Amino acid sequence: MKIRLIALISALAFCISASAQQTIGGRAQIISPEINPDGTVTFRYRNPKAVTVQLSGDFLPDSRPVDLVEQDGIWTYTTAQIVPPEFYCYNYIVDGTRTLDPNNAQVDRDIATLSNVLIVPGGIADNYMVNDVPHGTVSKVWYESGIGKNRRMTVYTPAGYESNSRTRYPVLYVLHGIGGDEEAWMDHGCAARILDNAIASGRAKPMIVVFPNGNMSEEAAPFQNSTGYDRPTAGLPMTMEGTFESYFPEIVKFVDSRYRTLARKDSRAICGLSMGGFHSCYISLNYPDMFNYIGLFSAAIGVAGDREGKSPIYQDIDKKLELLFSKKPALYWIGIGKDDFLYRSNAAFKAKLEEAGYPYEYMETDGGHIWKNWRIYLDTFIQKLFR
Amino acid sequence: MKIRLIALISALAFCISASAQQTIGGRAQIISPEINPDGTVTFRYRNPKAVTVQLSGDFLPDSRPVDLVEQDGIWTYTTAQIVPPEFYCYNYIVDGTRTLDPNNAQVDRDIATLSNVLIVPGGIADNYMVNDVPHGTVSKVWYESGIGKNRRMTVYTPAGYESNSRTRYPVLYVLHGIGGDEEAWMDHGCAARILDNAIASGRAKPMIVVFPNGNMSEEAAPFQNSTGYDRPTAGLPMTMEGTFESYFPEIVKFVDSRYRTLARKDSRAICGLSMGGFHSCYISLNYPDMFNYIGLFSAAIGVAGDREGKSPIYQDIDKKLELLFSKKPALYWIGIGKDDFLYRSNAAFKAKLEEAGYPYEYMETDGGHIWKNWRIYLDTFIQKLFR
Repeated sequence: MKIRLIALISALAFCISASAQQTIGGRAQIISPEINPDGTVTFRYRNPKAVTVQLSGDFLPDSRPVDLVEQDGIWTYTTAQIVPPEFYCYNYIVDGTRTLDPNNAQVDRDIATLSNVLIVPGGIADNYMVNDVPHGTVSKVWYESGIGKNRRMTVYTPAGYESNSRTRYPVLYVLHGIGGDEEAWMDHGCAARILDNAIASGRAKPMIVVFPNGNMSEEAAPFQNSTGYDRPTAGLPMTMEGTFESYFPEIVKFVDSRYRTLARKDSRAICGLSMGGFHSCYISLNYPDMFNYIGLFSAAIGVAGDREGKSPIYQDIDKKLELLFSKKPALYWIGIGKDDFLYRSNAAFKAKLEEAGYPYEYMETDGGHIWKNWRIYLDTFIQKLFR
Repeated sequence: MKIRLIALISALAFCISASAQQTIGGRAQIISPEINPDGTVTFRYRNPKAVTVQLSGDFLPDSRPVDLVEQDGIWTYTTAQIVPPEFYCYNYIVDGTRTLDPNNAQVDRDIATLSNVLIVPGGIADNYMVNDVPHGTVSKVWYESGIGKNRRMTVYTPAGYESNSRTRYPVLYVLHGIGGDEEAWMDHGCAARILDNAIASGRAKPMIVVFPNGNMSEEAAPFQNSTGYDRPTAGLPMTMEGTFESYFPEIVKFVDSRYRTLARKDSRAICGLSMGGFHSCYISLNYPDMFNYIGLFSAAIGVAGDREGKSPIYQDIDKKLELLFSKKPALYWIGIGKDDFLYRSNAAFKAKLEEAGYPYEYMETDGGHIWKNWRIYLDTFIQKLFR
């Protein structure tokens, strides 16, 4: 009963995770990445045997990999310029093979690939940080689906939702892109932090936010479904063939029965990125009484023409657009990056709206089909809702 | 408006994550790990330039790393024997440097280190899988702490909790080890899946399960707290000096106010691993009317002697033990591995209980201070609760 505490803690630290030794063992710890006082960022990597080590990251000019330089087995790279505030991803390439930074345990999964995260605080990135504000609750929730399986969604309830028992809230549905799942917006999307910060500052109204899984062939994110530990792929079946759209009312019904929602059109919004923009477009077209606010973020629109004759979801688009806009939704919002490969199809869609005289709001940003834009679109869109 | 769908999906898949190309690009996909029909497991890794590639994993004999063999740039290792059903962790060592398997996106974080996960289904591992059973909800919940900060906990509500509005449930508090946080039991611990499966089969009663963060110097898991993106270390301050234990009633009070609990001693349990066993021991000693079921999993007990004179939490232990057992808790449960470095101090603690005639249950398993044992202890302990 007289083991000395310090010895015990050392022993515990060693035994709980022998694999964690690089940070808690005897040898000096490497800090990587390190944001320097002058705003540059230094990356470090210990590997005495490597021949070449490169850094790949979305903060690098033209996203081109750069070389690290070795001294005493430690490879180092410091950015030539200040890295502006943003949420970035990076990885190393060691002798030609992609690898993670072992000194940075903050990783995000995108489809089947992990990347390290670098957040440079300040400016826009402060929206993506956990700040000292009231926090909403983030829940992984299963519901019984008419498609024959329990399915999983992520639900954000705003600060205050659980501590009162009367207030009812509007609901925003946020859809992921192809290859994504109900966790995508929480990881790369920083959605819970964007919502916490926007609601705390009064920029956005308190709202319930629902992130469904738009892949009807899987119940939940990879490693979270009962069909086994399938390897995720980008081109899952049953993603853009009408099933998700036609089953969407069951999600709304479930949310309205489970949560204290304002269960009516004027308090419902939907948005999504890429495939999720495509889904948002067709769900709102097919259920024109469901949503008062519709947001298309880099939406994969412009494919309906080819689908005609298949799912009825994609048929009679002009008639459905006419019906939707005759019901005067409060907001039809389109966001797209100048370099997005979907820029042209979005421009064509906008032209179609203009020709018919349907009102919409439009935001054009730099860059392409990237999370940086989708975070900005979400932050912008939520400020316009439920006013 | 006439982009062909297949071309679009290919373009989307490419653009959404250029870094995901190893699984969705043109070159053949590597499957790793692969559970073979004969029960062995094959690991593969593409790296034409590596000189040596080793595999480290807790399923290997004596946990000793083994060599992969290269052919055409693909390194391969197949286990010599059948790998029994279990939840395992592994990583590669490439030219002496630890790295993850890039073909397996399922990773778990332990303190500051990521490992790949291999689950071999069947037997005990079926408890750790997502099975086709009703699932509880897992929520990340913030509460206002008297210590001056919002703090985060993970809360499991059993299937059925949200779909009824009357039933009240017993509550189990589950504490993590040193260096862990409110996410540890969900990752390596498979806690939500263990609970889902045990409750669905009737082996355990439906219960609310709360996973607090026992590090009073941080609000939440790394990358989830407002003090910035601090690098986690194993030896956080304010973990085993009485603060967490003395503030524990605020957690119980919060849970009883937020959830439909049975807010009384006979419907409350506490358990924890390692440092969490230490915490469970001292919380129950200092609040003898709070818990009817107490579980010490590989508990870091036996350090109290040195603490006397510091926090009152660790003082007058014999008197506190006497008071606790005079109130006849329904279960005092101790689990320890034969090879655990805390085996002796647990044996001394048991001897102390026996000497005083205090009743307890005891489970001894093979192995040491490892998650494999803690998953078994949790699964065993929950079956004994609230009967």
